Amino acid sequence: MTKGLKQRLIETGAPDLEKIEIALEHHLKPNLELVRQIASHLLFSGGKRLRPLLMIHSARLCGYRQGFEIQFSIIFEYLHAATLLHDDVVDGADIRRGKKAAHTKWSTPKVVLTGDFLLARALDIAAETREPDIIKVIAKITRDMSQGEIDQLSKKGKLDLSEQDYLEIIERKTAVLIQGACQSGAILAKAQKENEAALSRYGFHLGMAFQMADDLLDYTASAEVLGKNPGADMREGKLTLPLIHSLAQASPEDQTWMKEVITASEFKSDQFEQLKEKIIAYKGIDYTRDRAQDHVKKAKACLRGFEDCPSKEFLSLMAEYAIERKV
Amino acid sequence: MTKGLKQRLIETGAPDLEKIEIALEHHLKPNLELVRQIASHLLFSGGKRLRPLLMIHSARLCGYRQGFEIQFSIIFEYLHAATLLHDDVVDGADIRRGKKAAHTKWSTPKVVLTGDFLLARALDIAAETREPDIIKVIAKITRDMSQGEIDQLSKKGKLDLSEQDYLEIIERKTAVLIQGACQSGAILAKAQKENEAALSRYGFHLGMAFQMADDLLDYTASAEVLGKNPGADMREGKLTLPLIHSLAQASPEDQTWMKEVITASEFKSDQFEQLKEKIIAYKGIDYTRDRAQDHVKKAKACLRGFEDCPSKEFLSLMAEYAIERKV
Repeated sequence: MTKGLKQRLIETGAPDLEKIEIALEHHLKPNLELVRQIASHLLFSGGKRLRPLLMIHSARLCGYRQGFEIQFSIIFEYLHAATLLHDDVVDGADIRRGKKAAHTKWSTPKVVLTGDFLLARALDIAAETREPDIIKVIAKITRDMSQGEIDQLSKKGKLDLSEQDYLEIIERKTAVLIQGACQSGAILAKAQKENEAALSRYGFHLGMAFQMADDLLDYTASAEVLGKNPGADMREGKLTLPLIHSLAQASPEDQTWMKEVITASEFKSDQFEQLKEKIIAYKGIDYTRDRAQDHVKKAKACLRGFEDCPSKEFLSLMAEYAIERKV
Repeated sequence: MTKGLKQRLIETGAPDLEKIEIALEHHLKPNLELVRQIASHLLFSGGKRLRPLLMIHSARLCGYRQGFEIQFSIIFEYLHAATLLHDDVVDGADIRRGKKAAHTKWSTPKVVLTGDFLLARALDIAAETREPDIIKVIAKITRDMSQGEIDQLSKKGKLDLSEQDYLEIIERKTAVLIQGACQSGAILAKAQKENEAALSRYGFHLGMAFQMADDLLDYTASAEVLGKNPGADMREGKLTLPLIHSLAQASPEDQTWMKEVITASEFKSDQFEQLKEKIIAYKGIDYTRDRAQDHVKKAKACLRGFEDCPSKEFLSLMAEYAIERKV
């Protein structure tokens, strides 16, 4: 089933992917080879181009036929990469997509500036759309993401994070960008306001489902598949829904034990296995999967008003893929 | 003379300044007190609001009467502050406007993210202008400034920096932003293309003159007036025009001695005085002042085609002030 889904997604996405890659390379050609190196590290290491594809198919679903959707779609890949670069500086995270984070390989200043440069390229292309509402969307994305990061920074290591706190964090960390990509596609197509709103909501729910699925994988996937150690978020002091839910459900004794493990400066792999067992026992995995599934359902419901077409099928498949994927 | 000039500038600028301050505070009101603190540090410590004032008077000079010029002008103060924050991270500079640089007081991540947040606010307001060409200008500013910083980073400590290298650095570091503020004023006023181009050129020359004057002050002003130690740029390995010109003119012996002083890990204050004497002897100060004066003349020439009005007078006075100021 999963492979079939992935296969169908790849087949639907493939005709555009090559053009996306070309556009991504093309707009990255500054005079500064260094910028290319640092940015390529994130931009050309096997990304799925999820955000560009979402903008492209949102535009087409709303009847856009001017032919610039691919060129404009890379705005959201550049924004994504810029965010990842600044995140790496913020997190001090040392593994990203199985490779060393940029700032451990290069200096913090260069990483910060390359992030700024990518943001500037995104803006450049956004200005070419000549749609002020797309600029508004990008401004909102940038604002929410930086505010969210600042917020998350201040909550790092907090053990009493509520589910509501978590939802706000992942909305700003992940959902606003995916939402913005879908909404911008609709704006580009000069869609009716209700269709723009429907695609914006679709993107929001898809983004929430994606992040929840990501947070699940941090507990359920193997290091080889994940390209980084499972439990990495927790090790960085970031509590995600599987753990938050389990902590809330746990007996006082288990709660105490779990908090000790979480806050320990280091722990052995068998402790992580024991923690996983607790999370499974307290339904942290099931609960998170259910919430992600809710968002997938809501995302698909947002597509109902649109006529059947390949782009609608792509967006629908993408919603299912959000929680079916294994990496 | 200088005091009279400054006084006249203040009188012309004053009616708008209060409104600029209010707008700056207003748009900085997020829920996150922390952001306000870090940003306020740069935004509310006695800045002259040069960039907002330039946009305001450029718009008015082109006949803009819609009344939103002040609200929009703060785009360029936010951009300026965002740049300063990221610069501080890049430079490791520890004194800015006589106060400690933000990142020594707060963590690098917070400073980076606050810079991102300010940039996002600037974009938000820019989107409200609904002028895609203003977005284009902002994209260019962001791109040039980050590229320039990256470039400067790779040239740090280079002793064979040419005058041409220097001109490219200060254009991207300072002139593009001031140029962009002036050009955006013209775009907001829907000025004729030739007037937009004239104000863009005016801003370019003004920016070049300003930066050259800044670089002069680094050698001519006292620590008390400057709010930081003179020679700070050189101590950070940044060669500016007074030194570049003098090095090119110096005898082989003096050149060797000067390079030794510049590259020394630390030097005593009398060595800096001796270096200053060499720079004076080799006309580094005079030459830089002449080049700055050239830019002031060119800036003023760009205003010729416009009818006399208070805004024209303001811009003209500003050009003179660029090199007359003592701090």
